Amino acid sequence: MRSWVEVSADSHFPIENLPYCVFSYYHESPRVGVGIGSYVLDLSFLYNAGMLPKGLAPHNVFALHALNEFVAQGRPIWAELRKCLTEILSEDNPLVRDDEELLSKSLHKQSDVVFHLPMKIGAFVDFYSSEQHATNVGKMLRPDNPLMPNWKHLPVGYNGRASSVVVSGTPVRRPNGQTMPQNAEVPIYGPSRNLDFELEVGFFTGKANPLGQQVSTAEAEDYIFGMVLVNDWSARDIQKWEYQPLGPFLAKSFATTISPWVVTMDALEPFRISGTVQDPPVLPYLLCDRAWTYDIALEVLLKSEKMSKPQTICRTNYKNMYWNMAQQLTHQCVNGTNVQVGDLYASGTVSGDSPDSYGSMLELAWGGEEPITLAETGEQRKFVEDGDEIALTGWCQGDGYKIGFGEAGGKVMPALSTEPAS
Amino acid sequence: MRSWVEVSADSHFPIENLPYCVFSYYHESPRVGVGIGSYVLDLSFLYNAGMLPKGLAPHNVFALHALNEFVAQGRPIWAELRKCLTEILSEDNPLVRDDEELLSKSLHKQSDVVFHLPMKIGAFVDFYSSEQHATNVGKMLRPDNPLMPNWKHLPVGYNGRASSVVVSGTPVRRPNGQTMPQNAEVPIYGPSRNLDFELEVGFFTGKANPLGQQVSTAEAEDYIFGMVLVNDWSARDIQKWEYQPLGPFLAKSFATTISPWVVTMDALEPFRISGTVQDPPVLPYLLCDRAWTYDIALEVLLKSEKMSKPQTICRTNYKNMYWNMAQQLTHQCVNGTNVQVGDLYASGTVSGDSPDSYGSMLELAWGGEEPITLAETGEQRKFVEDGDEIALTGWCQGDGYKIGFGEAGGKVMPALSTEPAS
Repeated sequence: MRSWVEVSADSHFPIENLPYCVFSYYHESPRVGVGIGSYVLDLSFLYNAGMLPKGLAPHNVFALHALNEFVAQGRPIWAELRKCLTEILSEDNPLVRDDEELLSKSLHKQSDVVFHLPMKIGAFVDFYSSEQHATNVGKMLRPDNPLMPNWKHLPVGYNGRASSVVVSGTPVRRPNGQTMPQNAEVPIYGPSRNLDFELEVGFFTGKANPLGQQVSTAEAEDYIFGMVLVNDWSARDIQKWEYQPLGPFLAKSFATTISPWVVTMDALEPFRISGTVQDPPVLPYLLCDRAWTYDIALEVLLKSEKMSKPQTICRTNYKNMYWNMAQQLTHQCVNGTNVQVGDLYASGTVSGDSPDSYGSMLELAWGGEEPITLAETGEQRKFVEDGDEIALTGWCQGDGYKIGFGEAGGKVMPALSTEPAS
Repeated sequence: MRSWVEVSADSHFPIENLPYCVFSYYHESPRVGVGIGSYVLDLSFLYNAGMLPKGLAPHNVFALHALNEFVAQGRPIWAELRKCLTEILSEDNPLVRDDEELLSKSLHKQSDVVFHLPMKIGAFVDFYSSEQHATNVGKMLRPDNPLMPNWKHLPVGYNGRASSVVVSGTPVRRPNGQTMPQNAEVPIYGPSRNLDFELEVGFFTGKANPLGQQVSTAEAEDYIFGMVLVNDWSARDIQKWEYQPLGPFLAKSFATTISPWVVTMDALEPFRISGTVQDPPVLPYLLCDRAWTYDIALEVLLKSEKMSKPQTICRTNYKNMYWNMAQQLTHQCVNGTNVQVGDLYASGTVSGDSPDSYGSMLELAWGGEEPITLAETGEQRKFVEDGDEIALTGWCQGDGYKIGFGEAGGKVMPALSTEPAS
């Protein structure tokens, strides 16, 4: 299928994708758009122009600053809008294509707009679902006990901080905090020395369930609206000192970067595949009656201030994950926890088997023992340094097209040099 | 000082208190009120009737379903409204007292209204700030290492689930989940057998700080609006199996009960006292230039279905806490995490030195080894059983008056008997 909007061969946004975003154009207020080629299609304008079926929404839900209200209408509406947008953008449809005014007002170059967080995020949960990552980290922190006994029985996860999730492009300040230097007697305060990224993908929920109820893996289909790239920035030295016994807190809460594009499960459907065989078998409530893994190529790029272009430092694939999204969602509400529209559930770091497929600097440079060399400048990296730009990207490779996620990028700023005064 | 509203000697709500709530009266929509004696004063009605200074708010922020918008206006406005309400309710002020219509429309019996969550809660953070509690739990889970090396250097905490915070009176369903029975080879699914309460108090923030900035302990004064009782319901068997290495997740996320009343820091000011001496000394960013502990008597009451009245099973005091609220807030944003209006930060279980001052069943019955006997019926309790009502209460004892928190109560319902189907 082709669109009348020009889509280059390597574009992340062919007509088969149609990912949602929230954007603003100059001083106008943020609204909902859809990516096509190097453009964003303004759904709020199209709605007001009567180009979208009125039945799609009780009012212009695309004029809002987040996707939540549109998404809350449910899966049949998601499908209906996708069908309608596919028609509008199809090569042979003249409606917008040949209407100069409609065209100029509804289609903006992505380089001319500002992206915002696509959803109002009610809760952010982070899982730990790559066996390779959990094993790698475990080896470094607990050599005698890398993979905990619970790990293959439940998708280990924890609640993160939703308020500090930021959209791609937002600079990330190196956190200050408390750490215990090796062989020291007392902890010190200062900038984290071991700043890291974590290559993850996450899903947004598009349906709420009430407190006290559960969601089965079969029902998960109706709850999962779409996926984003997630960089779960981590301060390893802060984490090491603080994380026992209640888990990571300040090591993670300072920032989490997501891509502006929410790629829908409908767009990802052709890339659905069977996942890792789980052995030992999981408890019945975690069984799935269909495939729940997706073949998504993922990369991490690093560009230091001295470099002219980024270097790919990690190539991996989401299909490596041990636990899938349906299991993650079902597990998170097996105890009756309510799900909200706009909750973000992240996968945990995606690492593969080979050393160049590890999704964090901690693993790529193996705790500092095997620094990465940046080819262009000869610089070395054990962790992320000030001025470094870290970008995650990902896509599904179709036959002659890509269903892409765009990018989740951020540049690291130096830590605040101050200290909160007593 | 006395009010024209009758306030009994043991009331939690004399004119010196004036705690805020969100309530609804019959089918009318929720709005903001203030507790006085056994009544709630309707601030939305008073605002519309022109009884509150217009300068207090740009519009009727008391007609909203949460305190957030009022609170976001800042500390001087908090003080101004308190002054104004104190005047209106003062014994010798005839304005409302002698106006029959005003009186009947603005003052409702607490027993005639329904309480709602007082704030829209953006984030819920739970600390672990009682040395006695951390030591008790540590002894049971990690006999060789009860208090972690980090514990006296930073206020250990973690992000909880904000969406499942419920107001007092909401029934709490026993969670289902995954546990590993002693000596078993594989985990099982089913209702938690070790359901527990945790006696905590928490504070709501009333000021936001931007991402990337810090809040000093001195600045904390402007951020902390008021306090509530918090029952951090916990499923100990789920927790034991899941909590390594990323902390408690489903063991806590199914429900957290708070009192409907937010007691302001202004009302608590006379009960401000110096806290525990911290040894070893804390890092400079955690030092406080003034007292930050409060003398708040706390109790837990249990009433089984067979009992005619509740039995007090724990008596303790908030002044026992090792870490204070200013330190908790400062620590949580030392890494640049943004604070929102309406974040809830809970203390962690408040336990004292004596066995009857422990703030959880886990400690009171010492992991099941020393069951509690309920005097009226002779029933025994190792943990909380279905049908049990657990209520937290607390108050500051003034000279002839109490600044009370009311109650955070909830009855335990049996677990869902179903299992999510695959």
